[in-house]
Amino acid sequence: MIRQPYLLFLGDAPDALAVKVARGIRDWRPDAALGQYRMAGCNADVDLPDMTIREAREAGAKTLVIGVANRGGIVSEAWKSVLAEGLEAGFDIASGLHNLLRDEADLVALAERNGCALHDVRVPTVQYPIGNGQPRRGRRCLGVGTDVSVGKMYTALAMDGEMRRRGRKSTFRATGQTGILIAGGGVPLDAVVADFMAGAIEQLTPDNDDDHWDMIEGQGSLFHASFSGVTLALVHGGRPDALVLCHEPTRDYMRGLPGYRLPGLAELRDLALTLARVVNPDCRVCAVSVNTRELGEREAADCLAKIEDSLGLPATDPFRYGAGRLVDALPE
Amino acid sequence: MIRQPYLLFLGDAPDALAVKVARGIRDWRPDAALGQYRMAGCNADVDLPDMTIREAREAGAKTLVIGVANRGGIVSEAWKSVLAEGLEAGFDIASGLHNLLRDEADLVALAERNGCALHDVRVPTVQYPIGNGQPRRGRRCLGVGTDVSVGKMYTALAMDGEMRRRGRKSTFRATGQTGILIAGGGVPLDAVVADFMAGAIEQLTPDNDDDHWDMIEGQGSLFHASFSGVTLALVHGGRPDALVLCHEPTRDYMRGLPGYRLPGLAELRDLALTLARVVNPDCRVCAVSVNTRELGEREAADCLAKIEDSLGLPATDPFRYGAGRLVDALPE
Repeated sequence: MIRQPYLLFLGDAPDALAVKVARGIRDWRPDAALGQYRMAGCNADVDLPDMTIREAREAGAKTLVIGVANRGGIVSEAWKSVLAEGLEAGFDIASGLHNLLRDEADLVALAERNGCALHDVRVPTVQYPIGNGQPRRGRRCLGVGTDVSVGKMYTALAMDGEMRRRGRKSTFRATGQTGILIAGGGVPLDAVVADFMAGAIEQLTPDNDDDHWDMIEGQGSLFHASFSGVTLALVHGGRPDALVLCHEPTRDYMRGLPGYRLPGLAELRDLALTLARVVNPDCRVCAVSVNTRELGEREAADCLAKIEDSLGLPATDPFRYGAGRLVDALPE
Repeated sequence: MIRQPYLLFLGDAPDALAVKVARGIRDWRPDAALGQYRMAGCNADVDLPDMTIREAREAGAKTLVIGVANRGGIVSEAWKSVLAEGLEAGFDIASGLHNLLRDEADLVALAERNGCALHDVRVPTVQYPIGNGQPRRGRRCLGVGTDVSVGKMYTALAMDGEMRRRGRKSTFRATGQTGILIAGGGVPLDAVVADFMAGAIEQLTPDNDDDHWDMIEGQGSLFHASFSGVTLALVHGGRPDALVLCHEPTRDYMRGLPGYRLPGLAELRDLALTLARVVNPDCRVCAVSVNTRELGEREAADCLAKIEDSLGLPATDPFRYGAGRLVDALPE
């Protein structure tokens, strides 16, 4: 686990898009981030107090999180002096960049000297078991998409947030880099060795209270030729009791797959349910989460009504309208 | 690629089961193995001439293949003097053992000094691409199973052998350790990082002549909770034109999954076809390959007749009756 609270490092971010990771942490775990660190020329802001390394340390921050991405996902030389100052002050550092902190000899030496941890959340650091397919106590919900990048992480986080607001037991279970930084831990599933994918997800979603829900972050799509195997490992390793269908209604072709049309929601429902019931015959598809960002108010409402009508399932956009209807739809 | 022909190292094998890998190479690529090397106390024999390192070298063998497995899959100290002699004589060494040749410092030093390669076929040695889902020229056949270990590799090898006997263009595409040693190359799919599974299989089965068939070695099962993600990556990365259903009719529960009943063949047919058609709408299920080892002659014939009757597909046991009916069933 990554120690919280964080100081979010925005570096020399050229724009808001470059600090998507920091924004995600700020939005979903406001208590986990005490401040932001911006270098000269930074054009981004995630609405947290600006802090120096020393101020953040005194305020109790424990980990410096690289909340900025640059082209190529490398650890920029321009950042090094700040990262070094952080390590000297006793901060751990966490990063989801493609290039790893552990491959930067200067940072490794400093971390060792100061007894600090370097967390590269893009790669697994533990040996996962082979999946055993056995039932666990507690309940699990998984988002499955008609495509990649349709809002599966957002849906899981929003449902987890709504559950907590209602005083119900829930844990967001991260399976990707951003999710892991938000949650402080998780499984970087796309980097796990094939044989251990399902076992990693079983380990991520262990026995729990009978009335506790794991809100598992989905990955890929069963219909996406590049990543479908990752998705099926989530369905079988996660052993969901409830599936939420995730969809982006304006996309013509699947992302990264020219010529591939998106499947229909009914097609996704049938395939995902068939596969989920291999491990959990009681699994149900309970709702549809629609990313309506590209639609106006009226269009969004029409789109949701049409989906509800054709599938007979509650449909909403948790970003636009909150996740209440999704949580209401969870089985008893 | 691993250089052929081989000298098969049987070491101090306690029994025939321990040399399954060597037996597979002997059976499927008789031209690829010139001889066998047996240490004192070896209780196995794969019906090849016994050769010393020197004799094998003079006969033209290029790679010493560890065709024996011991408990734990380790490189036994007792074998070291022979392996060292092989390297001194200029042999490459290939191994599918769990413990890697490259982790044995003495062997690595000797290999370097003599300019020899150490092939650990259990782990990938190249960086695979992300799958792109695009069609390739040529045809592809994949075996999918009701469970793991039901004869998928055997089926692909037998179909490939039958195709060649008929003078047709065919290549066995290995996706597991034993298959890779038999073919001299392939993808150790269970050890590939999740994101690259489908891309690895696309790379393994590239553009080819229009009348060429890749006979792709299947892995896992879509119904096996531990490994289903690996299987789906094969279905989507392999983009099969033809699926052969593989089954073992006497098994009550899935291997390694107590409490999980095997799916029916019709269930497997429908699910595998639905998934395969995501990438190739023309894919067909063409035949059933049944492992009848546990059945007598009469029982086996009855079992096959019953399956043919209920599915309306040709069914045979390629070990017992040859792969002719499977090859006959391939689409035009």
